[in-house]
Amino acid sequence: MMALLTDSMALARWRDSCRQRGGAIGFVPTMGALHAGHLALIQAARQQCAHVVASIFVNPTQFGPNEDFSRYPRTPEADRELLAGVGCDAVYMPEVGEIYPEGFQTAIRVEPLTLDLCGRSRPGHFDGVGVVVTILFNRVRPDVAFFGLKDYQQYQLIRRLVADLAMPLRVVGVPTVREADGLALSSRNRYLDGEARVRATALYRGLLAARQAWRAGERQVAVLERVARDVLERAGIEAVDYVAVREAQTLRVITSFTESMADPVMLMAVRVGGARLIDNMVLSREDGAGLSL
Amino acid sequence: MMALLTDSMALARWRDSCRQRGGAIGFVPTMGALHAGHLALIQAARQQCAHVVASIFVNPTQFGPNEDFSRYPRTPEADRELLAGVGCDAVYMPEVGEIYPEGFQTAIRVEPLTLDLCGRSRPGHFDGVGVVVTILFNRVRPDVAFFGLKDYQQYQLIRRLVADLAMPLRVVGVPTVREADGLALSSRNRYLDGEARVRATALYRGLLAARQAWRAGERQVAVLERVARDVLERAGIEAVDYVAVREAQTLRVITSFTESMADPVMLMAVRVGGARLIDNMVLSREDGAGLSL
Repeated sequence: MMALLTDSMALARWRDSCRQRGGAIGFVPTMGALHAGHLALIQAARQQCAHVVASIFVNPTQFGPNEDFSRYPRTPEADRELLAGVGCDAVYMPEVGEIYPEGFQTAIRVEPLTLDLCGRSRPGHFDGVGVVVTILFNRVRPDVAFFGLKDYQQYQLIRRLVADLAMPLRVVGVPTVREADGLALSSRNRYLDGEARVRATALYRGLLAARQAWRAGERQVAVLERVARDVLERAGIEAVDYVAVREAQTLRVITSFTESMADPVMLMAVRVGGARLIDNMVLSREDGAGLSL
Repeated sequence: MMALLTDSMALARWRDSCRQRGGAIGFVPTMGALHAGHLALIQAARQQCAHVVASIFVNPTQFGPNEDFSRYPRTPEADRELLAGVGCDAVYMPEVGEIYPEGFQTAIRVEPLTLDLCGRSRPGHFDGVGVVVTILFNRVRPDVAFFGLKDYQQYQLIRRLVADLAMPLRVVGVPTVREADGLALSSRNRYLDGEARVRATALYRGLLAARQAWRAGERQVAVLERVARDVLERAGIEAVDYVAVREAQTLRVITSFTESMADPVMLMAVRVGGARLIDNMVLSREDGAGLSL
């Protein structure tokens, strides 16, 4: 039986019982609307940790005023079935007032890492992510936390935040799970109608084209980005927020490649139908999945 | 023998050995240049906790560009003797590079609490305090942390930060230790020459005068502030940064007193000689010491 923890007291009791039994606690924070990408996080936690807890919390502070907080998909019953089905031990589903108590006024910023890319078109988004993850970490106190590499900038934000604040846990990035045609799984894919769903495959195809060019020896950032953009444009995706090749850990702009250069990651964000979709690929890796830790 | 912990590995070993033996860990973060005020913090920790650790770290990020970081008094040998003398079990003295690793870029802000009073004349100061205390808490992982009520705004900042981020520890405020003539102990008192040292007693006398007025029934904030300012001015202290009566927990401006009103605290900051001095008093409390927790 998966434990349902609706407040921090229940969470604390569950955590204490895990500590008594020994073994690592693995944590997967989510906003619900779970899909196979989330389940891959649970499975990774299951493999590495004796105890696995997920959280479901649609965090209001990471949505902008014109974003989809109110219509963000909420499927708590289905979520719990899915979590139980992959062997999750407990799910923490706090109320907003438990995460943000009265008088709350603390902000966390990781800059410059979060200023560019998605941070540019979603001001405040990563501040909300950083603060809620810090709060959840302090409540759950896991030994290991698992994040999807699909949200690549978020993953690097969490790694930086944990290192900077010396939080006592390890952060693991889990490769993006894709549909058969390459579309990265996302809760926001639910917004796509049939025609938009087809166009959305261009993200992955654009990344593959850029990786192909990288493998063929192309080292000009602008050319690599052009290759991917061409794929998006041919698919009729006109609302391109960004297509960018960056240094894979710091997300710094790359001016020229040298032998000592860290891996380059290509990141993109577009609007298709009513949905904002993101995807990424580490061009220099066979699996494209991102950094091993 | 007091343990000297110069890096986080030694700190972790010390903490693990405390955990094995059981009992609470009490933590007193300091910037060194210790005086009897700090020792009162250690003694409070000693009374409440099985294990007591202090840190000495002159935190560069809480000094402004025109402040006294480079000339801040550093007396590590004397500090260690004093700590050992009051029964401190361990002292953590990290290097700057251990607290702020390469690529560090995380900021913590608690606003509006830190925008006014000392925050107004020391921009960035409380951001530096908040981030270093968070890092130290995550490294030391104490059960209880002790802060002097002399730095009253800092104390409320830490309480807010710990509550907001759900940090798993308790924050205790320890009453200000004063010289026989009432001057609050401060490492910066070392900057005072004989004449400035005499004038500096006006801070406490001003607070006492305001409390006297409060007890006599005065409830107009402006009048209470005027009473204290008059004492400062009569002592020849012209460089008054602020004299303010505020709500004692949130430090919000008080517009009118009502029966349900929380306690009022008077806070002041002045320049005397080469030193910036602060002091405060909870006007409604007999000991004036601040809030019990």
